Amino acid sequence: MERIERHACFGGWQDVYQHHSVALNCTMKFAAYLPSDVIDKQYPVIYWLSGLTCNEQNFITKAGAQQFAAEHGVIIIAPDTSPRGEQVADDDAYDLGQGAGFYLNALMAPWRDHYNMYDYIVDELPTLVEAHLPANGKRAILGHSMGGYGALMIGLRNSERYCSISAFAPIVAPTQVPWGQKAFSAYLGEDKSLWARYDTISLLNEIQVTPPMLVDVGTHDPFYHDQLKPELFAEVCQRKCHDFTLNLREGYDHSYYFIASFIGEHIAFHARYLKN
Amino acid sequence: MERIERHACFGGWQDVYQHHSVALNCTMKFAAYLPSDVIDKQYPVIYWLSGLTCNEQNFITKAGAQQFAAEHGVIIIAPDTSPRGEQVADDDAYDLGQGAGFYLNALMAPWRDHYNMYDYIVDELPTLVEAHLPANGKRAILGHSMGGYGALMIGLRNSERYCSISAFAPIVAPTQVPWGQKAFSAYLGEDKSLWARYDTISLLNEIQVTPPMLVDVGTHDPFYHDQLKPELFAEVCQRKCHDFTLNLREGYDHSYYFIASFIGEHIAFHARYLKN
Repeated sequence: MERIERHACFGGWQDVYQHHSVALNCTMKFAAYLPSDVIDKQYPVIYWLSGLTCNEQNFITKAGAQQFAAEHGVIIIAPDTSPRGEQVADDDAYDLGQGAGFYLNALMAPWRDHYNMYDYIVDELPTLVEAHLPANGKRAILGHSMGGYGALMIGLRNSERYCSISAFAPIVAPTQVPWGQKAFSAYLGEDKSLWARYDTISLLNEIQVTPPMLVDVGTHDPFYHDQLKPELFAEVCQRKCHDFTLNLREGYDHSYYFIASFIGEHIAFHARYLKN
Repeated sequence: MERIERHACFGGWQDVYQHHSVALNCTMKFAAYLPSDVIDKQYPVIYWLSGLTCNEQNFITKAGAQQFAAEHGVIIIAPDTSPRGEQVADDDAYDLGQGAGFYLNALMAPWRDHYNMYDYIVDELPTLVEAHLPANGKRAILGHSMGGYGALMIGLRNSERYCSISAFAPIVAPTQVPWGQKAFSAYLGEDKSLWARYDTISLLNEIQVTPPMLVDVGTHDPFYHDQLKPELFAEVCQRKCHDFTLNLREGYDHSYYFIASFIGEHIAFHARYLKN
């Protein structure tokens, strides 16, 4: 694990690391914000999962999260959104292949050789982070759009591993919308019985106790009605979850201007549970 | 003047406009953050000038300034850094031509047909802003690197027009460092008597009363010793200015992570004088 970027930022450090990933069988980068210069202290970790077309840079350059991470004393880890490199299968479309890993383990050729983002995010990355950075073992997960889906799916499937879950403009029901159907068909194949373990709605119906969850969606998000459909998720949550909030933000869109406007509330939300 | 982007952001609007510039004789874009939805109120305006290679997007996507503009109730205008277009002279180097207008009026061919950023920033842009946006006529100016130079130079030459001036990592003495010498030679020619009106140190020595000024420079800025040399400016200020602060920020570099970390302090500084 090699540090390839370091910038002083809000009294801490915005770093970027590069390493060989076993799960993905390629070289990967991830960003790490450390909230302070103090090296003999340990901090909870919030994992941020980005959306389609993003890499490890988008969140750290555009969301303005460092200010709040410094304030609450949390590390933020922002990985890339897919395996990378010339030897990694790709597609010309923005919503399949590199930049569009959908946080699952692919079953189909040509994807299955590298596209194991689920294993990477759930196991390999936290192991690496907790071995090399001042992490105290407490974790939360959040994300945006495809990464909002990833945060909900991974958080629900591994609720013992995450204190809290949140999402901006998530794809809440991938099996019912075009982005998810296209990705699941390609990565998992047409046998829809294999889709359920990656379907947030199915997972929500299955598990007994959900971690605290916060979801924000902009009412002017151009993907609201076709791809996001937050009501599908909220309807189940309102029956099943004791701690779930859906904020519909009047006038906001799908951009990082939306994320930046409310990232402070999301980090405060996670900090509340991470520090319990 | 046509609005080509609009995003809800921190309770206000991050907009981008496009218009034909008379001073620059080309189509230009500028970004405008409006701190609120209230349209029958008027706000002071802070002009942000970006550095080499930037356009109207860098500041609005990376600095995290909207949060503080909303808090203090100020408009922020972020123009492009040079004239643009296929018919506009350019150079392969990053520090000359498009993206490197240096906020002056060029005297030499091939630059003089379009490179009149001084007139654009001092006259044309404020006139446009004050005619079309809810601006109350109070102005402040700040910038980064080449734009930090622009803010100091323009603010000092027009001290009756700006309530306050600030800069991140400015080129404080363009006639004494490589970036400035290269640009001045190309745009103004080799007759150095013509350089003085664009030289911040000369301007500072000339004028009687300077507006309040704030300058931040990171101690780990890779351009600190060769291009920025803040001490050259601070030394004159300490003799001449009753309200001047130079903050040397330990460990910070030249990036937007540095700007983001202290932009809140700069906006609070300007708000203090804009609201007098």
